[in-house]
Amino acid sequence: MSTQPRRTWLPFLNADIPAACDTPAKTAAFELELGCKTLGIEAPALQVMPDMGESYEIKDGVITGGERGVLYGVYAWLCAKAAGEEPPAGPQKPFYALRMLNCWDNADGTVERGYAGRSLWFEDGRLDWDGPRIRQLGRMLSSAGVNVLCVNNVNVRADAALLIEDEGLPELARLAAEFRRFGVRLMTSIEFSRPLAHGISTADPLDGEVQRFWRERADAVWAAIPDFAGFLVKADSEHRPGPFTYGRTHAEGANMLARAIKPHGGVLVWRAFVYNCMQDWRDTSTDRPKAAYETYAQLDGQFDDNVILQVKNGPFDFQVREPVSPTFYAMPNTRLALEVQLAQEYTGQQIDLYAMPPMWKELAQALPPETVSAVAAVSNLGRDDNYTGHPFAAVNLYGFGRFAWDPQSDPEAVTRRWARLSYRLPAAQEDALVDLLMHSREVYEKYTAPLGLCWMVNPHNHYGPNPSGYEYDLWGTYHKASRDAVGIDRTASGTGYLEQYPEALRAQYATPEACPDNLKLFFHRLRYDYRMADGRTLIQRIYDDHFEGCAAAEAMGEALKSLEIPEPDRAEALERMEKQIKNAREWRDVVNTFFHRLSGAEDEKGRKIYD
Amino acid sequence: MSTQPRRTWLPFLNADIPAACDTPAKTAAFELELGCKTLGIEAPALQVMPDMGESYEIKDGVITGGERGVLYGVYAWLCAKAAGEEPPAGPQKPFYALRMLNCWDNADGTVERGYAGRSLWFEDGRLDWDGPRIRQLGRMLSSAGVNVLCVNNVNVRADAALLIEDEGLPELARLAAEFRRFGVRLMTSIEFSRPLAHGISTADPLDGEVQRFWRERADAVWAAIPDFAGFLVKADSEHRPGPFTYGRTHAEGANMLARAIKPHGGVLVWRAFVYNCMQDWRDTSTDRPKAAYETYAQLDGQFDDNVILQVKNGPFDFQVREPVSPTFYAMPNTRLALEVQLAQEYTGQQIDLYAMPPMWKELAQALPPETVSAVAAVSNLGRDDNYTGHPFAAVNLYGFGRFAWDPQSDPEAVTRRWARLSYRLPAAQEDALVDLLMHSREVYEKYTAPLGLCWMVNPHNHYGPNPSGYEYDLWGTYHKASRDAVGIDRTASGTGYLEQYPEALRAQYATPEACPDNLKLFFHRLRYDYRMADGRTLIQRIYDDHFEGCAAAEAMGEALKSLEIPEPDRAEALERMEKQIKNAREWRDVVNTFFHRLSGAEDEKGRKIYD
Repeated sequence: MSTQPRRTWLPFLNADIPAACDTPAKTAAFELELGCKTLGIEAPALQVMPDMGESYEIKDGVITGGERGVLYGVYAWLCAKAAGEEPPAGPQKPFYALRMLNCWDNADGTVERGYAGRSLWFEDGRLDWDGPRIRQLGRMLSSAGVNVLCVNNVNVRADAALLIEDEGLPELARLAAEFRRFGVRLMTSIEFSRPLAHGISTADPLDGEVQRFWRERADAVWAAIPDFAGFLVKADSEHRPGPFTYGRTHAEGANMLARAIKPHGGVLVWRAFVYNCMQDWRDTSTDRPKAAYETYAQLDGQFDDNVILQVKNGPFDFQVREPVSPTFYAMPNTRLALEVQLAQEYTGQQIDLYAMPPMWKELAQALPPETVSAVAAVSNLGRDDNYTGHPFAAVNLYGFGRFAWDPQSDPEAVTRRWARLSYRLPAAQEDALVDLLMHSREVYEKYTAPLGLCWMVNPHNHYGPNPSGYEYDLWGTYHKASRDAVGIDRTASGTGYLEQYPEALRAQYATPEACPDNLKLFFHRLRYDYRMADGRTLIQRIYDDHFEGCAAAEAMGEALKSLEIPEPDRAEALERMEKQIKNAREWRDVVNTFFHRLSGAEDEKGRKIYD
Repeated sequence: MSTQPRRTWLPFLNADIPAACDTPAKTAAFELELGCKTLGIEAPALQVMPDMGESYEIKDGVITGGERGVLYGVYAWLCAKAAGEEPPAGPQKPFYALRMLNCWDNADGTVERGYAGRSLWFEDGRLDWDGPRIRQLGRMLSSAGVNVLCVNNVNVRADAALLIEDEGLPELARLAAEFRRFGVRLMTSIEFSRPLAHGISTADPLDGEVQRFWRERADAVWAAIPDFAGFLVKADSEHRPGPFTYGRTHAEGANMLARAIKPHGGVLVWRAFVYNCMQDWRDTSTDRPKAAYETYAQLDGQFDDNVILQVKNGPFDFQVREPVSPTFYAMPNTRLALEVQLAQEYTGQQIDLYAMPPMWKELAQALPPETVSAVAAVSNLGRDDNYTGHPFAAVNLYGFGRFAWDPQSDPEAVTRRWARLSYRLPAAQEDALVDLLMHSREVYEKYTAPLGLCWMVNPHNHYGPNPSGYEYDLWGTYHKASRDAVGIDRTASGTGYLEQYPEALRAQYATPEACPDNLKLFFHRLRYDYRMADGRTLIQRIYDDHFEGCAAAEAMGEALKSLEIPEPDRAEALERMEKQIKNAREWRDVVNTFFHRLSGAEDEKGRKIYD
């Protein structure tokens, strides 16, 4: 593995970090000098005040900050200068102390739901990486604001479990050192049943031998990596082992691990992604979105203070549009993390454009940022030359860091900053690119899953339309479209999912009339002749959205062609745009035909719907 | 690889064939002595008359036959005696000279569409087999009547191409020697583009260098294996290379190869399985069943006399029910082979019971046996202890051999012979087992695809229901079910497929009324309220068939439990029957729900159809 780091949003940092930079403060000094030299500007002074931690302030020609804060200050100052904007004024500190990236990298070098090539640090069952590339990534993460990197897939398979054992720890410590200089700490996903692989007859969290196993493991990990961040666990989910096997609650399971790492200051991140993935489609008493709340709300207050329960933004699984998970509102006495997904599993797989900052802004509006105490994102990184598969998908990595630092940040400003740092286009072209990105999600939503009607995707790979792909499957994701109606009634008269929300929120969704259009079919089952607020029938609205969404994708293609994006990004973006347009047409025609066959309704505008 | 041969339908041949038996006649003498000893009966005399070839006659206490005929005579005599029946009277000779098994075994040891474990003769890229097991298989093939074995997948991948090259030929010759003693000759699948792998810049069949390459290969193969049977080719099909790349017809491609092997007496078997596997579902001008006829009918008379065009029984691909392929009736001046599939790709995957002899009998009734000059079956063999995955799936291997020997043989008699040789049950139990097998196909058809409505299967793996699984895919297999109607009009007013049949046959299918129920939706698009001959609506018939088919599967389960099949077959059969019943229930409920959602029609008998 050896590839030269190439252009990211930090083109002015065009030399490798020397080995001597082994702390964030030393890195800050190096980066400042390098950046100023490239940009041809004068450098401010640096002042480290250890008590400031991750905070910094830029004032009177001095960047003052903690050991890590000063590095954030340097990146903030350099990026502002490079963009021709003003550096942030006044004291700056991150809103969330934990700003985590969850990498679903497997030890064999593949990446689960990875759309940017193979793993940047795994190959052949062990850690192996290209130094300059990893250090360029460290820069990117730090300049965005990410400070924790979980290096392996939550589905821990094969050799990934060795990372925290004697075989893997020395290399893990070396990797930790690569990132430490950027203020980024490592985390690993662990397998709940790991004691069994060591001759212990159980993984029961209340068993003394199990507890001892994990304490010894924790001692070894923190001895090798004193600033290790903690462990991430996916338990009792999609056939992963967990406490349920032993008749224990998830609080008992998480707390056992949390206590093992508590003396070292580690956090135990426990994913709340638990549901019945062997559902019988005939079973209408089970409604998958209810699962996380049903498992966890009753455990509120039972988790130790170094446990963080990581909850996906919506109750399903990273669909284009979901309501905010009700679990967030139900656990005031538990530390929660919000989990979002940069990997575009259901949102275009880094082929179709899908910039996420506007989505996170909506999320922050629906969910007061103080509800959670940490944020995590499933990574979109890989070994592709541009790190993210689609060159523009980097806006999601950058944007996530900015969102994690300040959840109230303006998505358009963040997007523009990324575009300006990356490409330096003429003003009108920059406006056009920002416009393209800012609208990319609504375009994708419109041609794939408008009205909250999700899961009409191809099973397994999750790209492209398949209206009935999951309809008779085990995954609990049904729309039950019939000749008359479509959607699931999730109100009190239906599955009761809506009852999981606090009173005030319930009213927003309780009736089809009150419910916003983009979630109507998530919460309600409606007849095709249902009249939307604007007078259109539901079926006409389905047709209109798919036609308009596809036309908008085609227009994006035209807009993209007119932009003088530097190569190779331009060629890469155009090539992917061709695929996106093909995908959009497929969505338009398949979904419209599907509903036309069901409903028999003709398009009022007489557009082509295939038989 | 080493497994002891275990019980097949030849339990009285319970010792390995010695190496000295290197001709069928020597094998015949050995088998006769061994069989008579086990059965405790007196042996008839054997007389070899070389001119008789594969023929034999059993008369006046003497089995007289050609070098191979005498072996068939011995097996016929022993099987009759073991079954307590009379040996065949009068001169016996096979109806087809070529009775071929096509094994889709890959060099890596996997078997494409194999449901009986790994390959019996491939592992790690090369031939490798267990002698006693292979010799037991040789017995099985010879006793059934199969005389050609194509050892590798028609999709020639990786090292399989080496079989006929210097690396692989010595081992192939050794394998040929194993089977030669049973009168079974080998064949291999070859890759049309193979010259490219040898530094030749083209595979154009009209190129002199290409022709020389194949002549040299043929010379080498027949030098190593003088009785080699020939080559099998899948060209221009499902992304395989072929003559179309060079603007040549399939006659030009096939004849070039045929001429290379002609001096050695080999046959060139060319598969007629050519269609557009990248169809746009929106394209209604293309109808996949028309493809083979469109490609080949115009080439009638252009193939050399040692070319055999191998045509699948139906125009699609081994569905439960298809009409006979019209290509058979369109090529009177071409040698044709009929291809059937023992591997239960779409017919239960050797989990669900599906005995094929009744199906072949129907085929022989629709297609005069003299229309074709050879028969081939895709193998259902594998390394499983019982050779065929399901112990009862052996009836299809045995039955195919009997069908190939005599296409007018009585399927019930063949099934009973297999059952009696294999299990020796009390008479009433034998009747019950034969009954189970004889009806197994109609039961499977009823709960999966009654009325000729095929392809409602899970994509790729082809097991289990998925009504829309292929509906918007590239494979040309659509039913276009809407709220009002289902099926494809393939008459003159539709896709015109029916026009490919001779006048006399067309009338059988031309109108919904004339068309037999089991092909109605193959040939016609019908409204759900269409009245069948018995007065039921189409939709009621769909519901009835799926309910009744599932109930019949459940009843088969009960019947099976009552049979004293010897272990381990009983346990294996019962375990698979549980899966079959689960599968039948899934088919019943998914298909009924699918059509209920579309049509809105209630079941007249008030049975449960899920929402």
